[in-house]
Amino acid sequence: IGLHSAEIDSQMEWTDVQKKIIPWKNSTPSLDLEMAFQDRAAKLGKSSSGLIVVASLIDKPTNLGGLCRTSEIFGASALVVGSLHYIQDKQFQHLSVSAEQWLPLVEVKPCQLVDYLQQKKTEGYTIIGVEQTAKSFDLTEYCFPEKSLLLLGNEHEGIPPNLIHHLDVCVEIPQQGIIRSLNVHVSGALLIWEYTRQQVIKQKQQK
Amino acid sequence: IGLHSAEIDSQMEWTDVQKKIIPWKNSTPSLDLEMAFQDRAAKLGKSSSGLIVVASLIDKPTNLGGLCRTSEIFGASALVVGSLHYIQDKQFQHLSVSAEQWLPLVEVKPCQLVDYLQQKKTEGYTIIGVEQTAKSFDLTEYCFPEKSLLLLGNEHEGIPPNLIHHLDVCVEIPQQGIIRSLNVHVSGALLIWEYTRQQVIKQKQQK
Repeated sequence: IGLHSAEIDSQMEWTDVQKKIIPWKNSTPSLDLEMAFQDRAAKLGKSSSGLIVVASLIDKPTNLGGLCRTSEIFGASALVVGSLHYIQDKQFQHLSVSAEQWLPLVEVKPCQLVDYLQQKKTEGYTIIGVEQTAKSFDLTEYCFPEKSLLLLGNEHEGIPPNLIHHLDVCVEIPQQGIIRSLNVHVSGALLIWEYTRQQVIKQKQQK
Repeated sequence: IGLHSAEIDSQMEWTDVQKKIIPWKNSTPSLDLEMAFQDRAAKLGKSSSGLIVVASLIDKPTNLGGLCRTSEIFGASALVVGSLHYIQDKQFQHLSVSAEQWLPLVEVKPCQLVDYLQQKKTEGYTIIGVEQTAKSFDLTEYCFPEKSLLLLGNEHEGIPPNLIHHLDVCVEIPQQGIIRSLNVHVSGALLIWEYTRQQVIKQKQQK
């Protein structure tokens, strides 16, 4: 990598950027901040994908911290959380191992999700719910579009019915265990991986 | 599912089986116990795969508990741990959500791993290390054999050099993040998933 974090910080006035991480608003999508993040990562040779991971419905700081680490490693373009307060949580920080410094975090409260998803649709994203429903696609059969937005469900309630209507598609992970389903961080990680795997294979085929 | 755990217990004298979970020894592979577990799971309509997950090098109860849950859900035939004492750990139990009752757990201490891996080779297993080495296969390109044994590395040290020599192959997960690599539970989950995905696709092709 070669550059120290401190050097990058001085180049990018990183402290200012961090102070400016603001809640998402319908009228101001704060695209400039997302761009600043991506610019900074690009300077370190990191490319970001067309994947947005939306974790606004998730309650546990451990799951959010883990998702932050995993999303950063696979180059997601942003992680959306229900509250930016989670970033100060010790358990979040323990599991994120500072990934939040390299991944754009956007705050979208659960009550703002319908508007947020609508806007992302107009930006060309396919809204994908990770949920078991009668019409869900099996993860072994689903082909991810390049611009994919993953909506993860709450640890206990999953994705509430009023949001299911706003999804383009649901995807479920085939599970054969006797105990209850996968942890939400693991479910998210498997979809992030599957998206990544498919993009890698597409890129190789284009060469 | 239909049957209550208590009913199954009385049928299988499950308490006796649990008491008999014993450390693996080279001379007595305790196949009868593995069979008893698989028999019990089969009665509930659960099939188990040709996948063994070896987590003997992992130290953290949270990672082991999480792997126990994930391995059970994807029908691994066994989870190998460095000490059965972990099962009593509160953090293990919190994350395993009782999966240890449905998945054969085998105790193989780190110092016994060389012998254990050798024996599994003679039983037809391919020994796969999850590790970044100069000769590692990319996970997007690796084709898992039906009888696959995954050896996961320690949280800090990975897989020690003396064990690398005993592997048939190493597989690594392509990662593009700036922070350090994936959590070992997540790495393990991605390989367990990839094994499962490939088996599902093979089974569909055979129909």
